[in-house]
Amino acid sequence: MNSFVPTSDTGFTIRNLPYGVFRTPEQEQPRIGVRIGAFVLDLRVIEHAGFFKPVFGDEHVLCKWSLNKFMGLGRPAWRTVREIITLLLRDDEPTLRDDKRLREEALIPIERVTMELPCEIGDYTDFYSSRQHAFNVGSMFRGPENALMPNWLWIPVGYHGRASSIVVSGAPIRRPRGQTKADDAAAPAFGPTRLLDFELEMGFFAGPGNALGEPIPVGAAEDHIFGLALVNDWSARDIQKWEYVPLGPFLAKNFATTISPWITPLEALEPFRCAGPVQDPPPLEYLRITDHTSGIGNQRGQGRDAAAEAGEHLTTFDIQLEVLLQTARMPSPHVICRSNFRHLYWSMAQQLAHHTSNGCNVRPGDLLASGTISGPTPDSFGSLLELAWRGERPIKLPGGEERKFLLDGDTVIMRAYCQGDGYRVDFGECTGRVVA
Amino acid sequence: MNSFVPTSDTGFTIRNLPYGVFRTPEQEQPRIGVRIGAFVLDLRVIEHAGFFKPVFGDEHVLCKWSLNKFMGLGRPAWRTVREIITLLLRDDEPTLRDDKRLREEALIPIERVTMELPCEIGDYTDFYSSRQHAFNVGSMFRGPENALMPNWLWIPVGYHGRASSIVVSGAPIRRPRGQTKADDAAAPAFGPTRLLDFELEMGFFAGPGNALGEPIPVGAAEDHIFGLALVNDWSARDIQKWEYVPLGPFLAKNFATTISPWITPLEALEPFRCAGPVQDPPPLEYLRITDHTSGIGNQRGQGRDAAAEAGEHLTTFDIQLEVLLQTARMPSPHVICRSNFRHLYWSMAQQLAHHTSNGCNVRPGDLLASGTISGPTPDSFGSLLELAWRGERPIKLPGGEERKFLLDGDTVIMRAYCQGDGYRVDFGECTGRVVA
Repeated sequence: MNSFVPTSDTGFTIRNLPYGVFRTPEQEQPRIGVRIGAFVLDLRVIEHAGFFKPVFGDEHVLCKWSLNKFMGLGRPAWRTVREIITLLLRDDEPTLRDDKRLREEALIPIERVTMELPCEIGDYTDFYSSRQHAFNVGSMFRGPENALMPNWLWIPVGYHGRASSIVVSGAPIRRPRGQTKADDAAAPAFGPTRLLDFELEMGFFAGPGNALGEPIPVGAAEDHIFGLALVNDWSARDIQKWEYVPLGPFLAKNFATTISPWITPLEALEPFRCAGPVQDPPPLEYLRITDHTSGIGNQRGQGRDAAAEAGEHLTTFDIQLEVLLQTARMPSPHVICRSNFRHLYWSMAQQLAHHTSNGCNVRPGDLLASGTISGPTPDSFGSLLELAWRGERPIKLPGGEERKFLLDGDTVIMRAYCQGDGYRVDFGECTGRVVA
Repeated sequence: MNSFVPTSDTGFTIRNLPYGVFRTPEQEQPRIGVRIGAFVLDLRVIEHAGFFKPVFGDEHVLCKWSLNKFMGLGRPAWRTVREIITLLLRDDEPTLRDDKRLREEALIPIERVTMELPCEIGDYTDFYSSRQHAFNVGSMFRGPENALMPNWLWIPVGYHGRASSIVVSGAPIRRPRGQTKADDAAAPAFGPTRLLDFELEMGFFAGPGNALGEPIPVGAAEDHIFGLALVNDWSARDIQKWEYVPLGPFLAKNFATTISPWITPLEALEPFRCAGPVQDPPPLEYLRITDHTSGIGNQRGQGRDAAAEAGEHLTTFDIQLEVLLQTARMPSPHVICRSNFRHLYWSMAQQLAHHTSNGCNVRPGDLLASGTISGPTPDSFGSLLELAWRGERPIKLPGGEERKFLLDGDTVIMRAYCQGDGYRVDFGECTGRVVA
């Protein structure tokens, strides 16, 4: 299946079709679009032209300035809209392809758009679901024998983050100031953080969500996952160390969180579904996937049949991740980490089931991030804290520079994609440059 | 100064005038009101009648379904609107008093209204600012010598709470389920919490707030405090114990937070301004009140002159607090705690300055709660955990019942008021009944 829009050299083929919110110099009002190749399909134009009438009637859902309403409608609406958009973009479908006026109005070159946050994020939750990351950080502070907390293998540990300071890729990141205390100092001091770090994460946007007091069962949780994006959970390690006991990270994290602007729907990820890690001890009943037909679709992907036959639950996705760093002196960015979404121990469904197990309500547009995604090898660790091992092994960059933590002028670029047979499903970039 | 609306036997005199959002059976659409005696002044009616034109022109600010826009306008607008409302309600001002039609439309008997959340709460932060509470909880788990964490006297410790599950007074509280682990158990179990608790807090609503990256200086912080309400930070102690290391409380808290529906503006509290506790060690510069003319107004209150002459900073307010408990078997509620807002160690201005010191942005309508307000005596502790000292000293209720923690059918009622000379400024009630 191909699109009449050229997409062959991009990760934004007709199999991807991520949603975002954008504006143009001509129309400052933000609106919803779908990325296709080097273009954005303006869904306001498509909705006004009547193409969503079969699903929404006269109601307006996609000519909004945010995705919240659409996110709240749930999987049947998401699937139907995706089918309509797919059909409109196919190379064997003349409706849009041959309507020059509509095409020129609806397809906007990507270089003319500025991306915005895709929705109002009511609440932002950050998990801690990579075992390797939890082990690494625990090892640094308590030694490898006591690295994992006793609760870690039972609970998808998470905490509430700050929604107000979530910014979209490209926004500059101002080095935060805060209280820090040297081990040998009598009193803390206030000033710019000296241990600024990134955290490689992915997050999912929720919808339709649940009413207060009514948990989402783990088996139904994926129907509340609209789609995924990259997340950089910027962290000030020195502020974190001094403030985080006993109530958790606060100012060490809430100065900024960057997300990639495009949300790839779960439907686009179905071919890349794969088995998650073996969970030992087995999770408690409310976190256990008992139906091995897990998954929202029935598409087939690499390894999917074999895994299913082996009785494994296809609870995660094979998403390749990269972090690149470019200092002010480097001519181009350099890859400093390669990881994979499948390294996460706790699945998104388990995170969401746990989050709502006490009755906590999740609303359309809420963001639930994974926590730092560290793989098993040192070059797959998802933060500078781990890559440079608390500053003990600075990473070496082309040109001779070294980094223990981020300096002013450094740009962090995160990328994610699924590798299909002759195509990619790309998540785009999540970038931010550190400024003083 | 009196109102033509009878208020003598209430805490809602013309000196209070708290804001809230309400609806009536006749008009389901929520709208903004001001409490006066046993009535609510419908600000939509007042705005439509043109009384706010001198301040807002043709713009609509108070005929909204939430207070966010008004909160965003800042103290000059807040003060002018308060002056207009005060004037309209005075007994020597005929405009509203003698206009029967307008009066009947604008003044709605309190028994006909249902209260809603006063605004969209974008982010909710909970502090931990009572030294006695931190000491009590620390003593239970680490002994009195190590009770206070090393950071506590330097940092107004806080963490992010959940905005979605904030409910207004009167909403039933469903006993949450969750993971707990007995000390001698090999594995955790999942089920209803057995250690359900309340926490007596007050919170303030923020506005106008700051842009990302631009801290609010402590000296300017009070201009971003719209007003105060009661907060019950319901807590499941057994879930909390098992989950909270290392990222802080999560499901132990986010199943529900109850707030009282009326927001008393800072202007109404000026007569009750008083000195906070001596802070030793002195806070770092960014948290230090250097201008002893602190305070937004110039009214005089009890003790205010004496304190100011003694060089003390009038950083807090004398607000009396009560918690009452009524079990299913009790005919009426019984006071189990009397505390005071002034017992807090960290002031609201310090909380807000700290929160934004790293550049984190606060938006109009954000809620910043104090943390449990425990006073120095055992009958002033603000949670059952402390009142019954971890279950070791069950509290005794009239009729012979005892409580270590809350049982199904128990109703918790929080009240707050400032005692003036012959009048009160009442915050109303923050209530919730526990259901299975």
